Amino acid sequence: MFTTPEEAESTFYEASRLADLALMMQVWSEDDDVVCIHPGGIRLIGRAAIQSSWGQIFNNGPLTIRPLRPVVIPGVMSSAHVLIEHVSAITPDGIQTANCYATNLFHKGPAGWRLILRHAAGAPRDADLFDLQDIPDILH
Amino acid sequence: MFTTPEEAESTFYEASRLADLALMMQVWSEDDDVVCIHPGGIRLIGRAAIQSSWGQIFNNGPLTIRPLRPVVIPGVMSSAHVLIEHVSAITPDGIQTANCYATNLFHKGPAGWRLILRHAAGAPRDADLFDLQDIPDILH
Repeated sequence: MFTTPEEAESTFYEASRLADLALMMQVWSEDDDVVCIHPGGIRLIGRAAIQSSWGQIFNNGPLTIRPLRPVVIPGVMSSAHVLIEHVSAITPDGIQTANCYATNLFHKGPAGWRLILRHAAGAPRDADLFDLQDIPDILH
Repeated sequence: MFTTPEEAESTFYEASRLADLALMMQVWSEDDDVVCIHPGGIRLIGRAAIQSSWGQIFNNGPLTIRPLRPVVIPGVMSSAHVLIEHVSAITPDGIQTANCYATNLFHKGPAGWRLILRHAAGAPRDADLFDLQDIPDILH
């Protein structure tokens, strides 16, 4: 049971690092309309589709996702986080790395904070260096 | 003043179609931490950065974005929509089209429903044909 969205989110990254599917699914909401979009992937709707997809990913081994520069948009019983992610994976061609933007939306329910929506997509190479923002270096 | 998230969202698409920057900015929340990520673009944080970016886009003319197959995740005073978008724009090389996934997050405040976060990114060519979901053709 996660008492903050940050706790749920850090467990998400831990589950990826450990390739632990059971832990990963503890992070996701039990609601019907959970949605996950992997970078370059087809939209996944529902726990079974999401579990199957993470199972396939973890079959290839752990996925190291380093979250950077979160922007947090708090709501009532909800919290949206927009992060930059450094993703690295071991492939037959060696370690592959990429920058992604990820939107993680958490809802608070009877079972604590859970991930209900994740939209991850490729980001420009220099996404980790700067944002275009109204008040540079103050918001973060 | 938008009384539903759907009304705010349809105004977003109308503003794109009309290249109407003032209308577009009526859709966005007055909060400091509004975030917009265009497909392939750098993360934009704050109303001024977002307004500047849409201004540049509209300088090139209208943008026809046709929203399809929304998945709506309702919350308390919030609503997250994950859509497929057919984007078409007129360029010197003719009409260019692309599929995108977009996450639009709306919050309800004293000024009604407003867009507080938009994350749009390229989607696979066949994204408009199907999702990977638990209960095909029932949820939508």
